[in-house]
Amino acid sequence: MTRTVVASATREIIIGFDQPFCVIGERINPTGRKKLAAEMIAGNFDTVEADALAQVAAGATMLDVNAGVTAVNPNETEPPLLVKTLEIVQGLVDVPLSIDSSVTAAIEAGLKVAKGRPLVNSVTGEEEKLEAILPLCKKYDVPVVAISNDETGISEDPDVRFAVAKKIVERAADYGIPAHDIVVDPLVMPIGAMGTAGRQVFALLRRLREELKVNTTCGLSNISFGLPHRHGINAAFIPMVVASGMTSAIMNPCRPQEMEAVRAANVLAGHDPNCGEWIMKYRDYTPAAAGAPATASAAPAGGRRRGGREGRRGAAV
Amino acid sequence: MTRTVVASATREIIIGFDQPFCVIGERINPTGRKKLAAEMIAGNFDTVEADALAQVAAGATMLDVNAGVTAVNPNETEPPLLVKTLEIVQGLVDVPLSIDSSVTAAIEAGLKVAKGRPLVNSVTGEEEKLEAILPLCKKYDVPVVAISNDETGISEDPDVRFAVAKKIVERAADYGIPAHDIVVDPLVMPIGAMGTAGRQVFALLRRLREELKVNTTCGLSNISFGLPHRHGINAAFIPMVVASGMTSAIMNPCRPQEMEAVRAANVLAGHDPNCGEWIMKYRDYTPAAAGAPATASAAPAGGRRRGGREGRRGAAV
Repeated sequence: MTRTVVASATREIIIGFDQPFCVIGERINPTGRKKLAAEMIAGNFDTVEADALAQVAAGATMLDVNAGVTAVNPNETEPPLLVKTLEIVQGLVDVPLSIDSSVTAAIEAGLKVAKGRPLVNSVTGEEEKLEAILPLCKKYDVPVVAISNDETGISEDPDVRFAVAKKIVERAADYGIPAHDIVVDPLVMPIGAMGTAGRQVFALLRRLREELKVNTTCGLSNISFGLPHRHGINAAFIPMVVASGMTSAIMNPCRPQEMEAVRAANVLAGHDPNCGEWIMKYRDYTPAAAGAPATASAAPAGGRRRGGREGRRGAAV
Repeated sequence: MTRTVVASATREIIIGFDQPFCVIGERINPTGRKKLAAEMIAGNFDTVEADALAQVAAGATMLDVNAGVTAVNPNETEPPLLVKTLEIVQGLVDVPLSIDSSVTAAIEAGLKVAKGRPLVNSVTGEEEKLEAILPLCKKYDVPVVAISNDETGISEDPDVRFAVAKKIVERAADYGIPAHDIVVDPLVMPIGAMGTAGRQVFALLRRLREELKVNTTCGLSNISFGLPHRHGINAAFIPMVVASGMTSAIMNPCRPQEMEAVRAANVLAGHDPNCGEWIMKYRDYTPAAAGAPATASAAPAGGRRRGGREGRRGAAV
């Protein structure tokens, strides 16, 4: 049973086949958030703090921390900014962190200050990346997200993406890093651009779990890029990837529809013992309070089918 | 590629591995609906008519029709009542029907009047049932729902349920009924009573599809029986069973959350070409209009993660 251990200063979390889905909060990331980038450059971490608190309150298992403000000379500017951001976040909330940067020096600087056992985000199958990141993961004994692209880009062929993931796992083994410390991101394409994107990733997730025996993750909202009502697509994608074996995702935990899907998928995958988390969260739930539209019928939900079949047959369920 | 053909007077629908999920509307069923039962006994079909129209308007692919008012002597009373109900429904809406009864004489009476190619609901692995229902299916050349229980009841062991399904498929073959005219219901247990119910059915669905090559269905809302906020569980269960290969369900199409999950699962399974149905339905969707609760953040949804990864790497997706 594959288990990736991550930890904050005091709390250990396991990403694993037998665990609740690990929600890695994506919000602390200035990429595409100009206002946040400007704030962080100016040394203002109010939004970072608010995002850290809001994501943990919303149910994030871990937080991704990215300081890629894309200023000039990121090799110089990003390491101290990432360190500052990590220190602020881990001073505020007690969840494991994911150190997210494309700058190797920033990852190493982050590893020096991060408490517990953070996750490195990320390595790819690119030779330069493998040689830069894997020794750091070994040195600091931390798990790493492995994105299944290489120098040739992202292949549309899932077999090629699987092969890249396999290569990374094998290279990691050469460095003494076990497969359970590799969390593979099979890369999710937008379904609006590629109709097979869903089936492709479901099949890939199964292979990664059964053949490579690794945990998996993805940038979840990619799937709905370009479509209307993205939350509806994202919220259905979550149970489908859980059913296909995915164990974590980098996503926005402040979206109630997506988080409801995560909690329900945990129940259905058998990872919420006695439905305890679900009942705690939704026992007083009323559609009216959540503003759900009225349905066409006032009859009580479900149960009739059950009554219809079992009532007649007297089954003992 | 397994395809089960059903039809109304003028419209043919295919239940199949490569088709959109087939939603079989469950509402026209007096079991557990005392008021409806009383109306139907009294010859008042107002609710039946309203339910037929509402379910088709909500997106039902087919309608299940049950007239089990559980009056005294169902062998006498149910056949004419089912015939009357079927005639009313097929006079009102042009979708294929599922003839739902535990009374063999009612099923045969229904088969005599139903237009097109209806689905028979159901046969089980019970010897008496097999001998009563399968010859009717052969005689009228119609597909049938096969529920995987037998004289011993519903087994908690999925291997036994698979064996019962296999037996029904084999017995049907003896009568000259092909596997593609058997739609197996693997039986869904309430997850609140059995924590493994989800994983069990997902594994069963895969086996039924890969080994028996049959279409599948279930009474969907059973899964959430006894839990709070059942729609949330149902709506996550749908994408999970679709990812596991299920091709239809008997469910309430008048529930927006469940139907949204069906539409999104169709997109993600690659069964909504160019996301056409999704875009048509949700292009003007606004969370405010649907009354969704406000989220913790005002930032635009998703896309950032994509930007974060792909922006840097210049991927061509």
